[in-house]
Amino acid sequence: MQTMTVQNTSELASALIRVLKEGKQDTFHDIIKDLQPFDVAVQFKELPVKHRPLFLEFLTIKELTELLRHLNQDEQLHVLRVIGPERSTAILGMMKNNDLAFLLTGLPKAQVDELIAEMKQEEMDNIVSIMNYPPKTAGRAMTKRYIWIHSSYTVDRAVSKLKHFANLATYLNYLYVIDDEKKLIGVVSYRDLLLAEPHALIVDIMSCNLITADVLMKQEQVAKLIAHYDYVSIPVVDETTILVGIITVDNVLDIVVREANEDIEMLLASGKAIDFKTKPLVAAKKRLPWLILLLFIGLISGSIISRFEATLEQVVALAFFMPMIAGMTGNTGTQSLAVVVRGLVTEDLSFKKSLKLLVRELIVGILIGVTCAILIAVIAYVWQGSFVLGIVVGSSLLATLIIGTIAGTIIPLVLHKFNVDPAVASGPLITTINDILSLLIYFEIATMFISKLM
Amino acid sequence: MQTMTVQNTSELASALIRVLKEGKQDTFHDIIKDLQPFDVAVQFKELPVKHRPLFLEFLTIKELTELLRHLNQDEQLHVLRVIGPERSTAILGMMKNNDLAFLLTGLPKAQVDELIAEMKQEEMDNIVSIMNYPPKTAGRAMTKRYIWIHSSYTVDRAVSKLKHFANLATYLNYLYVIDDEKKLIGVVSYRDLLLAEPHALIVDIMSCNLITADVLMKQEQVAKLIAHYDYVSIPVVDETTILVGIITVDNVLDIVVREANEDIEMLLASGKAIDFKTKPLVAAKKRLPWLILLLFIGLISGSIISRFEATLEQVVALAFFMPMIAGMTGNTGTQSLAVVVRGLVTEDLSFKKSLKLLVRELIVGILIGVTCAILIAVIAYVWQGSFVLGIVVGSSLLATLIIGTIAGTIIPLVLHKFNVDPAVASGPLITTINDILSLLIYFEIATMFISKLM
Repeated sequence: MQTMTVQNTSELASALIRVLKEGKQDTFHDIIKDLQPFDVAVQFKELPVKHRPLFLEFLTIKELTELLRHLNQDEQLHVLRVIGPERSTAILGMMKNNDLAFLLTGLPKAQVDELIAEMKQEEMDNIVSIMNYPPKTAGRAMTKRYIWIHSSYTVDRAVSKLKHFANLATYLNYLYVIDDEKKLIGVVSYRDLLLAEPHALIVDIMSCNLITADVLMKQEQVAKLIAHYDYVSIPVVDETTILVGIITVDNVLDIVVREANEDIEMLLASGKAIDFKTKPLVAAKKRLPWLILLLFIGLISGSIISRFEATLEQVVALAFFMPMIAGMTGNTGTQSLAVVVRGLVTEDLSFKKSLKLLVRELIVGILIGVTCAILIAVIAYVWQGSFVLGIVVGSSLLATLIIGTIAGTIIPLVLHKFNVDPAVASGPLITTINDILSLLIYFEIATMFISKLM
Repeated sequence: MQTMTVQNTSELASALIRVLKEGKQDTFHDIIKDLQPFDVAVQFKELPVKHRPLFLEFLTIKELTELLRHLNQDEQLHVLRVIGPERSTAILGMMKNNDLAFLLTGLPKAQVDELIAEMKQEEMDNIVSIMNYPPKTAGRAMTKRYIWIHSSYTVDRAVSKLKHFANLATYLNYLYVIDDEKKLIGVVSYRDLLLAEPHALIVDIMSCNLITADVLMKQEQVAKLIAHYDYVSIPVVDETTILVGIITVDNVLDIVVREANEDIEMLLASGKAIDFKTKPLVAAKKRLPWLILLLFIGLISGSIISRFEATLEQVVALAFFMPMIAGMTGNTGTQSLAVVVRGLVTEDLSFKKSLKLLVRELIVGILIGVTCAILIAVIAYVWQGSFVLGIVVGSSLLATLIIGTIAGTIIPLVLHKFNVDPAVASGPLITTINDILSLLIYFEIATMFISKLM
């Protein structure tokens, strides 16, 4: 009953291997039936490769379907290959169609056709229609496995429909009420059904005060709706308010984690979708473009320094403060960027709010600029014994910190305004701009004071 | 029925202001009753300050309670002050206790005592017990508002208990089954109740295959459980498996977003919990410590450069490649760090997995090191016309990229091993180490070749 401990997991693994070696399907099922699908998947992934075919053979179609939900795409395709076309088709028919769309995403058309060739026409149409929605829209994340009832039903009739489709009802808590034109007009929760009299009319007990997601709404936006309204699922409608699917909170959790990872990947330029299992060559390939981009950004900085070679040759001590100025300007820019990017996860931005944010960041930039400038001016004076150097370094830092903060705020706001995800485009852009500006400002000021510095 | 558009929101705002000016409570309620609590909160926050007291006066205790859930702590305290002690007590009595604990967190003891002074003893004990759990544990996020039933109940009796506590049942989908010692032995979903015969025994229809969270489990871990098992809620038990509360998926969504934000704040050193509404002075205060830390890190780099002043004076061109080498080493370190920190969100790490990850990152470091080193060697040769300079820059970059990658992997793994959140401590540490090492290596190699460079 407790959450499985590591010890239990490894005991379980040895028990499973023993049973598989002995080929005892009954004992195998005795063990499996007490496990949650996620734990079955953990066991499968830990299993030595040679035992896997028998493991898969022993599972029922239902168990295989649930196993598949907890595997990544490569593992899913591997399983389908091992179990052969007949059982594969049965499984694909059982999968929630958003899971199925996930499985098929990015596969060559020939392979998709082969996989779904044996399915019922209706199921095939469902999948094709989901895969036709643009990536990251509500349409791609929704499932069509929900239960609808007509507004004229009684509670009794609704419950018997629920009983009839009990399999579909596992993950849901609502029945969706539609009118003659299949337009969504209300929802009824299982709780409402339990509390109502059997002969009450659905139309009298349903809740009409609905929040729905448009089928083309961004998944991020759907996640915001679910989080704001504390829902466990949200109905998805097309432009004519016809119900086309639902999105459940477990999918939203996945979306939120994925979006956060993408924000981090982009903010840190760390490479898309690298996890613990990514192969070295693949990980290197994903990280290299960013590093090569940074290499050229670094060279631009270098070429700016080379323009001021004469200044630098005369006062080599100027080089000592370069990493500090460039580093801090870069960081203050990313600080502002992070505030904007993550703020957008929970809030919508109006023009008024953006302007307020910009003014706030300007004041922040001045506050931190003045503080750091005074600090570094004193340190530079004490360290290098030159009052003028202190002034040069301090005033440069003041200017670059203010500019860095503003750049880090304006750029993502403008990108957001033009519907570009600020996380995607801002990181390297802000780093480049801040690097170049900070070195330019520093060396320009230093060159102005060069006679006094020597 | 559609999601509210901006236009609707502002029309609504003017309608509310008009009604408040005219002091018409009935019309006010006609408008409010069709809104979701989240939208009421949006309206309240947009309302000119002078209209707020009447707005609050017009709301019922239930509406006020729901409004409070969508405000931050400052706004909540403001509302409680405005409505006075009597209605405040009524509201605090209605709040879910995890929400209440959130409201009280960080307040001075005197203020807490004043706020809860008028509450029922039982409620007070509940709150105090929740606030006694360490921050970020399951105990802090759980609610005590769930419905338990004894295993000896029939379905009929369970449904009538559900009807009796219908108010509590809004956000839940399960009844929790306990034995004589209040130990949790199963759960029954509303769906199970709908599908079962009225005279069936709970003990026969309940699901015993439970995943529970220990009351001291970290909230991050709870989020992982809910995400893995696709639950909408998870029961929380103490060490003797006595049921002490439940955690619902809407809280988990908040936890996941908060943890992601914290990861980003730490990885980018961007300052804790700064959002669009944070005041400039507060935001500057939160960001300054990081910037001052970076200032000193920058100065360490500077002092390393100053140790090689002689080398630099002889070959000023060495300065041109400094930003590139330091920048790329820093970035490759954060890339590895991001992989570890975000990987831990969805996976647990065994020693074996850590070792595998380390080997993977070593190979990645070598691959990207060799590629970038060759590239920069050629560029340096073409740009500065010095073959030796190309060798110096290229071999430095090779060494620093490999070291940067390994440092970015080992440090968070070691911190995680010792139960320190790697996101908290790694960022500045890795930046410092990589900055210092990269400059040391670069200038050491350059000094070795100094006679050939001139």
